[in-house]
Amino acid sequence: MKKIDVAVLGATGRVGLEYLQMLKDHPWFSVVDATGNTKAGLKLGDVAPELPTKLRSIEIKESDPSKVEADLVFSPLPTSVAKETEAKFAESGFKVITDASPHRMDSDVPLMIPEINPDHLKLIEGRAKRGTGFIVATPNCTTIGFAMSLKPLEDAFSVKKSVMTSFQALSGAGYPGVPSLDIEDNVIPYIPGEEEKVPAETNKLLGSVSKGRDKILSNSLQIFCSCNRVAVIDGHLESVYLETDKSVKDPEDVFATFSGVPQDLKLPSAPENPIVVRKENDRPQPRLDRMEGNGMSTVVGRIRQHGAKTLQYHLLTHNTIRGAAGGAILTAELLAKEHDIF
Amino acid sequence: MKKIDVAVLGATGRVGLEYLQMLKDHPWFSVVDATGNTKAGLKLGDVAPELPTKLRSIEIKESDPSKVEADLVFSPLPTSVAKETEAKFAESGFKVITDASPHRMDSDVPLMIPEINPDHLKLIEGRAKRGTGFIVATPNCTTIGFAMSLKPLEDAFSVKKSVMTSFQALSGAGYPGVPSLDIEDNVIPYIPGEEEKVPAETNKLLGSVSKGRDKILSNSLQIFCSCNRVAVIDGHLESVYLETDKSVKDPEDVFATFSGVPQDLKLPSAPENPIVVRKENDRPQPRLDRMEGNGMSTVVGRIRQHGAKTLQYHLLTHNTIRGAAGGAILTAELLAKEHDIF
Amino acid sequence: MKKIDVAVLGATGRVGLEYLQMLKDHPWFSVVDATGNTKAGLKLGDVAPELPTKLRSIEIKESDPSKVEADLVFSPLPTSVAKETEAKFAESGFKVITDASPHRMDSDVPLMIPEINPDHLKLIEGRAKRGTGFIVATPNCTTIGFAMSLKPLEDAFSVKKSVMTSFQALSGAGYPGVPSLDIEDNVIPYIPGEEEKVPAETNKLLGSVSKGRDKILSNSLQIFCSCNRVAVIDGHLESVYLETDKSVKDPEDVFATFSGVPQDLKLPSAPENPIVVRKENDRPQPRLDRMEGNGMSTVVGRIRQHGAKTLQYHLLTHNTIRGAAGGAILTAELLAKEHDIF
Amino acid sequence: MKKIDVAVLGATGRVGLEYLQMLKDHPWFSVVDATGNTKAGLKLGDVAPELPTKLRSIEIKESDPSKVEADLVFSPLPTSVAKETEAKFAESGFKVITDASPHRMDSDVPLMIPEINPDHLKLIEGRAKRGTGFIVATPNCTTIGFAMSLKPLEDAFSVKKSVMTSFQALSGAGYPGVPSLDIEDNVIPYIPGEEEKVPAETNKLLGSVSKGRDKILSNSLQIFCSCNRVAVIDGHLESVYLETDKSVKDPEDVFATFSGVPQDLKLPSAPENPIVVRKENDRPQPRLDRMEGNGMSTVVGRIRQHGAKTLQYHLLTHNTIRGAAGGAILTAELLAKEHDIF
Repeated sequence: MKKIDVAVLGATGRVGLEYLQMLKDHPWFSVVDATGNTKAGLKLGDVAPELPTKLRSIEIKESDPSKVEADLVFSPLPTSVAKETEAKFAESGFKVITDASPHRMDSDVPLMIPEINPDHLKLIEGRAKRGTGFIVATPNCTTIGFAMSLKPLEDAFSVKKSVMTSFQALSGAGYPGVPSLDIEDNVIPYIPGEEEKVPAETNKLLGSVSKGRDKILSNSLQIFCSCNRVAVIDGHLESVYLETDKSVKDPEDVFATFSGVPQDLKLPSAPENPIVVRKENDRPQPRLDRMEGNGMSTVVGRIRQHGAKTLQYHLLTHNTIRGAAGGAILTAELLAKEHDIF
Repeated sequence: MKKIDVAVLGATGRVGLEYLQMLKDHPWFSVVDATGNTKAGLKLGDVAPELPTKLRSIEIKESDPSKVEADLVFSPLPTSVAKETEAKFAESGFKVITDASPHRMDSDVPLMIPEINPDHLKLIEGRAKRGTGFIVATPNCTTIGFAMSLKPLEDAFSVKKSVMTSFQALSGAGYPGVPSLDIEDNVIPYIPGEEEKVPAETNKLLGSVSKGRDKILSNSLQIFCSCNRVAVIDGHLESVYLETDKSVKDPEDVFATFSGVPQDLKLPSAPENPIVVRKENDRPQPRLDRMEGNGMSTVVGRIRQHGAKTLQYHLLTHNTIRGAAGGAILTAELLAKEHDIF
Repeated sequence: MKKIDVAVLGATGRVGLEYLQMLKDHPWFSVVDATGNTKAGLKLGDVAPELPTKLRSIEIKESDPSKVEADLVFSPLPTSVAKETEAKFAESGFKVITDASPHRMDSDVPLMIPEINPDHLKLIEGRAKRGTGFIVATPNCTTIGFAMSLKPLEDAFSVKKSVMTSFQALSGAGYPGVPSLDIEDNVIPYIPGEEEKVPAETNKLLGSVSKGRDKILSNSLQIFCSCNRVAVIDGHLESVYLETDKSVKDPEDVFATFSGVPQDLKLPSAPENPIVVRKENDRPQPRLDRMEGNGMSTVVGRIRQHGAKTLQYHLLTHNTIRGAAGGAILTAELLAKEHDIF
Repeated sequence: MKKIDVAVLGATGRVGLEYLQMLKDHPWFSVVDATGNTKAGLKLGDVAPELPTKLRSIEIKESDPSKVEADLVFSPLPTSVAKETEAKFAESGFKVITDASPHRMDSDVPLMIPEINPDHLKLIEGRAKRGTGFIVATPNCTTIGFAMSLKPLEDAFSVKKSVMTSFQALSGAGYPGVPSLDIEDNVIPYIPGEEEKVPAETNKLLGSVSKGRDKILSNSLQIFCSCNRVAVIDGHLESVYLETDKSVKDPEDVFATFSGVPQDLKLPSAPENPIVVRKENDRPQPRLDRMEGNGMSTVVGRIRQHGAKTLQYHLLTHNTIRGAAGGAILTAELLAKEHDIF
């Protein structure tokens, strides 16, 4: 099989470099182009000498569709420029996969966690067949593990209401991000926009494709979030309380046996288990569990049932792997495998 | 007014030393005795040279009622020895005020937050008049701010259900406490016993004295806790979700105007405001807000109302001041002022 | 005595606010003006509601000498603007005391630690008498404790060579300063410019006034520095090795008995002891010792002598109190007391 | 080649488990026995379920030579029991390789860094040929990087005097080790015994074998240490100042081209470069550089020459890999390859 040529926009940022690392030996994708407005003209090797030879020699271009050639474009662009730049690439006929926030709630943009809603790709099927460009988005790093853990519970017990409190890692704020003077010996109990994004995105992820295949009918779970920053480098920990419509039975088993299309298709970046259950009293812990499944698994623990319809648990997801580069690459793999568009 | 002679049990531990610091210039109490089994025979000045002269010369005794003389005994003893030792002191006729956990839920022990339930002292009134010893307890450091914030809401809106997630400071685990290798770049999502204590203690605090004045009839709020340790030295942050029976109106005002008997009586350790409301988006923060009201105020912020009967907020309480020594001393002040027993 | 009117330039930055806090109840100085280019037009109370009423009503002006009226100007301006702005104020006739770096090594600028080199003020005496403006500087926060500890050793034993390795606090880098992603679980072994400043400034501090009273003849100690950033909020710890010309005797006593003009004159901000010696094995520690002498004392410990002429020790200085606002205010107090210029 | 059977003493401690991880796929060594007094009777899999099947089924024995069968014994025993237990194993005929401190300075014990002093193994050659047991030690984790960096400088320029200040990681103190309350927002400027061990061990490492091959004639470099604990999980950073007898030329090249017998022999655990030079201003950093060469390389940076004979630099070594398990395994590999004793 011929490799699919991909470009990485904003490749010289912290997350952009993670894409390059994860793509450098990818069996299906080959990085052929990279952009970065502030470093345009340099080569990738000038910015990241640790990359392999083939990547080091790639010239960094401006984030301009007329200068890029690729079958697929990954966009870890910063929010401020993502909206316009990604739209331009899509209008120019590119297939864009983005982990940035601006287009996530657009009606014609599927918001994807491949284990949860592979069918949402129907939204772009028509455009893909016609060879028209499109945008596919991945969720906020705080949404991902939460939605992943809700999906099997929703299917089994009909979730009615959920309260989620997060302990979010520093890398979620980008670089330079959180000043050390703000977080040392401290917790910051607020992350702008986050408490609104998680409910909206989760309900879109758990929603269904409309008959016209032109939009997603969002689910309507009640979700209340409290989003907080803690002094952890990587790995978002979340404490979840939820109420269900049906009686909860054997939730540990429901989590542990959850599997999806990426596992069936054995996609290259798919973890063996989307959800890994830890049985110890005091897990998951960010530093100990964030690399589970190469950073692609969500780790669930401390499952506590109260009565028939109330459940508490903790979950952990690596926010820059599954929550950014890894999640986007897995989505691209699903697109490549399931849709005859490359 | 003649000063009341007090003794501090376990005076050489981390919290014991905080009692001594807070009592050294107290207008009503005078430390005359101190115990500490592992340091018995030494003087306080050998263990804590930073104390004032008068205290430094006090000889440390064993925690044995026959060796102590005092009108009132403070006990910050470790859990393992508190149960038996405190009982012995009470049986020997001492008035014991403890911040340790073993006797908190005893039916004849009032569990006190002076702003919330001053009337619960009726439980020991008879014994006080007869000159019999008794135990008065203060709550777990995680319960205190939570119960303090619930009290005015319960009075105004009838709280039905609450979900609380804590971000607890390292000092809450005592010394040596949490190994640095466990908490650096990490969160520990479990604190043994804590998730059971908070609901039980909160419902006792919000309960009422039985007609026979011999026990507390606990309240029956539904409370679901998730207790977590973070890399913060002092100050327990808590994220609260709650549902009420009545429609919530102006919750910020309800918090800010809350006041109690300690404020009316101008007790020496009473903060001007038991609850201080911060209006910024990102407060309270442990390092910035823990010393509010000399560490005796609970700081509330991020108040968010959803519909008529759902509320979210964060709160912060200094866990070793209000949560231990300061809370116990305030309780002793209430006892001294309101009850003619010294 | 009538209070001296002072202005604070750059009053709304992190250090500027510390000046306001330290000056708000000062017995000799009264803040009458404040500048801050980005907040010009607002009142101090808009930026810092925690200030007392009198200060809150002061209008923030641009850092322009034609808009400021004061007998004395404190400048905690950022390096980038300090050079030009401070020169303008001096040229306009203002007495400027700065903790910024640009003018420290100017030949006509005394670099002051009042305990060490009060005579260096002779450099500005002529200008002071003529009513001409001038600049007086305080040293880099890393220099201060080091020079303070060297002074009595130099006097007693003639220091020949010194090797100093620093563990510098985050607040030394200003705000936002060091990104948390850079320092969590890490040390940064480099601080731009610092390893050159400390030797140059120390030798100026330990130098003597020229006969013409127009410059300082620097000392010529060999000083080798290694400056490093650690995850500590406040307090620069330094590990010192040194060789002397004369035999070292009783260095602990030499440190502990060191005293200077500020102590003789009982200046309001002078600590009782410029150097406090701790005898424990494991002190000084930043968190435990930085507030010694209200943050104005240097704490020395771990004194180890090897043979006759080799000494090792650790020292700690609060980098934003003695190292910035406090050091500058103490210098202003010396100026006010010793020189009849106000 | 038949694999060499090895046993790990104290296998269930933090470092013991690192040995098991590093040995589980070792091409030459096969773990056949494990001891651990407090877990005797359990299987390794009970303590460390993450180990591969073959290791999980090994029964944990008491640390008693009569119960262990192996060609070679690794000892990461805690200091308190290492002295006696290791001596017993050696007396019972075992070849013991230890990273514990008690026997390091014994006259008949070679103290080994395979790149530096492979010839010191002559000390045990006679015993090895006779089939008698012996002890071979590896140095303190703080000594290793320091000695590694000194070796090529000593060979090239004759080092005369050195001043070393360390920034040591938490894992160097074992588990539970440093209480979080001691190190959060702090530095601890003292590590018991460390400042004496580093000079003594370094001089033994750089010494020569006596003619009688019965002891090491230590070198006599003047070394002055200051050992400090910082809030870093793994990786000891050290700041070095030194003076040489000969003029220093091209020190960067001297470091970068250093190589030893392990590299010549391509021992399985030998890093390609024992010393890796970083040219950036602000490297090495513990979190970024500790895994260089799989944790077996020492990373040197910030090389600064002053005049002809004075040098400063920083170095970093992974304290639990090269500084414990990895260093001991590399030593065992040298023993296996160079000495015909298995």
